[in-house]
Amino acid sequence: MGKWLIKNGTFLTMDEKRPMIKGSMVIEDDRIKELTNQNVIDESVFSEIVDGTGKLFMPGLVNTHNHAAMSLLRGIGDDLALQVWLQEKMWPNEAKFTAQDVKWGSLLSITEMIKSGTTSFVDMYDHMDEVAKAVEEAGMRARLTRGMIALGCNDAEQNAKLQEAVQFAKDWHLQANGRITVMMAPHSPYTCPPSFIEKVVAASAELDLPVHTHMSETAKEVEDNVKEYGLRPVMHLSKLGVFDRPCIIAHGVHLTDEEIDILCSKDVRISHNPGSNLKLASGIARVPELLKAGILVSLGTDGPASNNNLDMFEEMRLAALIHKGVSGDPTAVPATEALKMGTVYGAESIWLDQVGQLKEGYKADLIALDIEQSHLYPKSDYASHVIYSASGHDVTDVWVDGKRLMKNRELLTLDEEKIRFEAQSCYDRLMAT
Amino acid sequence: MGKWLIKNGTFLTMDEKRPMIKGSMVIEDDRIKELTNQNVIDESVFSEIVDGTGKLFMPGLVNTHNHAAMSLLRGIGDDLALQVWLQEKMWPNEAKFTAQDVKWGSLLSITEMIKSGTTSFVDMYDHMDEVAKAVEEAGMRARLTRGMIALGCNDAEQNAKLQEAVQFAKDWHLQANGRITVMMAPHSPYTCPPSFIEKVVAASAELDLPVHTHMSETAKEVEDNVKEYGLRPVMHLSKLGVFDRPCIIAHGVHLTDEEIDILCSKDVRISHNPGSNLKLASGIARVPELLKAGILVSLGTDGPASNNNLDMFEEMRLAALIHKGVSGDPTAVPATEALKMGTVYGAESIWLDQVGQLKEGYKADLIALDIEQSHLYPKSDYASHVIYSASGHDVTDVWVDGKRLMKNRELLTLDEEKIRFEAQSCYDRLMAT
Repeated sequence: MGKWLIKNGTFLTMDEKRPMIKGSMVIEDDRIKELTNQNVIDESVFSEIVDGTGKLFMPGLVNTHNHAAMSLLRGIGDDLALQVWLQEKMWPNEAKFTAQDVKWGSLLSITEMIKSGTTSFVDMYDHMDEVAKAVEEAGMRARLTRGMIALGCNDAEQNAKLQEAVQFAKDWHLQANGRITVMMAPHSPYTCPPSFIEKVVAASAELDLPVHTHMSETAKEVEDNVKEYGLRPVMHLSKLGVFDRPCIIAHGVHLTDEEIDILCSKDVRISHNPGSNLKLASGIARVPELLKAGILVSLGTDGPASNNNLDMFEEMRLAALIHKGVSGDPTAVPATEALKMGTVYGAESIWLDQVGQLKEGYKADLIALDIEQSHLYPKSDYASHVIYSASGHDVTDVWVDGKRLMKNRELLTLDEEKIRFEAQSCYDRLMAT
Repeated sequence: MGKWLIKNGTFLTMDEKRPMIKGSMVIEDDRIKELTNQNVIDESVFSEIVDGTGKLFMPGLVNTHNHAAMSLLRGIGDDLALQVWLQEKMWPNEAKFTAQDVKWGSLLSITEMIKSGTTSFVDMYDHMDEVAKAVEEAGMRARLTRGMIALGCNDAEQNAKLQEAVQFAKDWHLQANGRITVMMAPHSPYTCPPSFIEKVVAASAELDLPVHTHMSETAKEVEDNVKEYGLRPVMHLSKLGVFDRPCIIAHGVHLTDEEIDILCSKDVRISHNPGSNLKLASGIARVPELLKAGILVSLGTDGPASNNNLDMFEEMRLAALIHKGVSGDPTAVPATEALKMGTVYGAESIWLDQVGQLKEGYKADLIALDIEQSHLYPKSDYASHVIYSASGHDVTDVWVDGKRLMKNRELLTLDEEKIRFEAQSCYDRLMAT
């Protein structure tokens, strides 16, 4: 840490004023101090000098929707109808999850995220103390939420869940040098009664925290919401005050023009999860229309049991590809826009301050890619290469808050082999019981 | 070569009779001699012993549509309307291609293909002697075609092109220990007059070779064909006798039920190119219907300027994902089917004999994946992991005809650094002129 230097680097900054810089970057503590196309700097003042030759540096990726611990269930229920997947594969196994399962499942996902260039993520799950401890240990940045399912719970049970979420927020918000922040998360309109959602909204106001929820993921969910409450999910949640809070919803696949207008006017952010939406056959979100309306759209992987990987390069590529194919417009979601969704918009959509660009004064959350590889040749357009040709495996180094978490693909803060071993043990026990 | 052994391996065989085997494989010369769940074999008779611990072995992937040399144009024309892309970016640059450009562009693609686990590919381009020499040197298996565009050519020019394709077939079919085979390739119904297509069909019959062509890639192509010839492309090519030859078409995006019936009855194979079709906004092929009809559907990347990578794991994943998302059926194109498209169906659809499965007597075209990685944990279902979680970067070793082409991610037959350097030089010259 202290003050260190990257020299001879190629920087894809995501700063519109100067998108590409060849030169040097000075990092001091957790911030980018200087970014310059000058190569000659007095090197004697630096505690470390990283030679950036053959590397492309860019902001770390931001994954705005995940259920990290579900990595333990990767591969046990694919190619199934949604209800079969949930009722026969996910819920019975998740009901058996202990705090230890959440710990090792989350750590397994965290290793995968760091190794594929993600520096910040949103998580929604249970036993969140374990997730927060894992994030703290790993050195990542995360916006964590205790996902509350309240349907079928009596008042006391509902209050206990809300109290747990409130306590988690009090314990962890702004901890780990500010790397950990919190949101309040009613799971969804279909798993939380209206009165409970109102209570969560009130708590989020009191704690001054944003709200995160699933919404309009499937056509059936929308239909059921109309049957149950006489309203589609957007109007339903709007009436409950959810959008009067800073809010990011996951999915937003099935939206009408009118609903898009409402979400836009309320500055609601949308975490687009293309891999999960395709795999679960939920549908194709109206991303070109959302972006055109001015909604802040970021990208999430969703949990690793419905994706089944956490490589954000793939989510950026899917976002750039599928909306072209489905709309018939090859200019839809261009590479530069998909890149913003994975970086700038990602950080902004979860209220991370000064994160998501390589810019003086910004947090030093950055990654390096090995660009001396066949699939990234010739050296024509790096924004295009990152979106259409690269993958998380091209990432060699990762820094968060100026601290190196991965060096030449080796994790520095976590014992990857032990994590794989423990995660496998959790899986074996879950499957045996 | 000679007789060698893989021990302690996990084999995803693609042989339906025994899909997963843990144990040993004996390879003798270019063939799989034995595949057994026994671990104890007299090891003294082998010239080499490969320890398969921590590795998943599977058949090498088959890419059934490519224009390899177009790697030189990767990243110079993205997010553009098809006609702008072709007329302003591709055609003017391709017109400048020399034999040397085709050589280094093809070698760049070949390095990328081997490093991402592809062992066989179809190529359609110009200066095909250079492609054949590159394939021979690299040790890959390939089905090569001289793509003929005849529109606007006079009779003498047309005959010269056909003669060149015939000569290429005579020179290279069944060369390189049979690794190189040839097809006859009129580029498409919209770039070849009917009389020329008939000549190519006659030549293919005389040479006893299959036909490969682009067909029904875009809605506009279909419309234009109706305007020009009064028929949609399937009936048009059928009338010209194309489907009376063994035939594989690329794309087949816009097909009616009746056309699917015709293609099926003629045993026409389809190379589905999901990445390219999405990126160029050509549309979504009706893959679930094609498979249901019994058509042999394989996967191709198309050229690296319209994809923009040659990772067949990504094409398999796209095939498994997009048809679920678009159809709303999460059981569409399950992992096992996508795997077959990339291996068994791939080999069969380009008439490769005894390729595409790990099976005694089959060609020893196989790859090894490093499965000791977070994103491939827990050890639940390897078919699922390969399709939904893996990528070409997970491939550590590649063999074709029993000969190792890559060892622990290092290429053994090609000088990757030199190829990148030469390809960059070609690109720099093309852009400067």
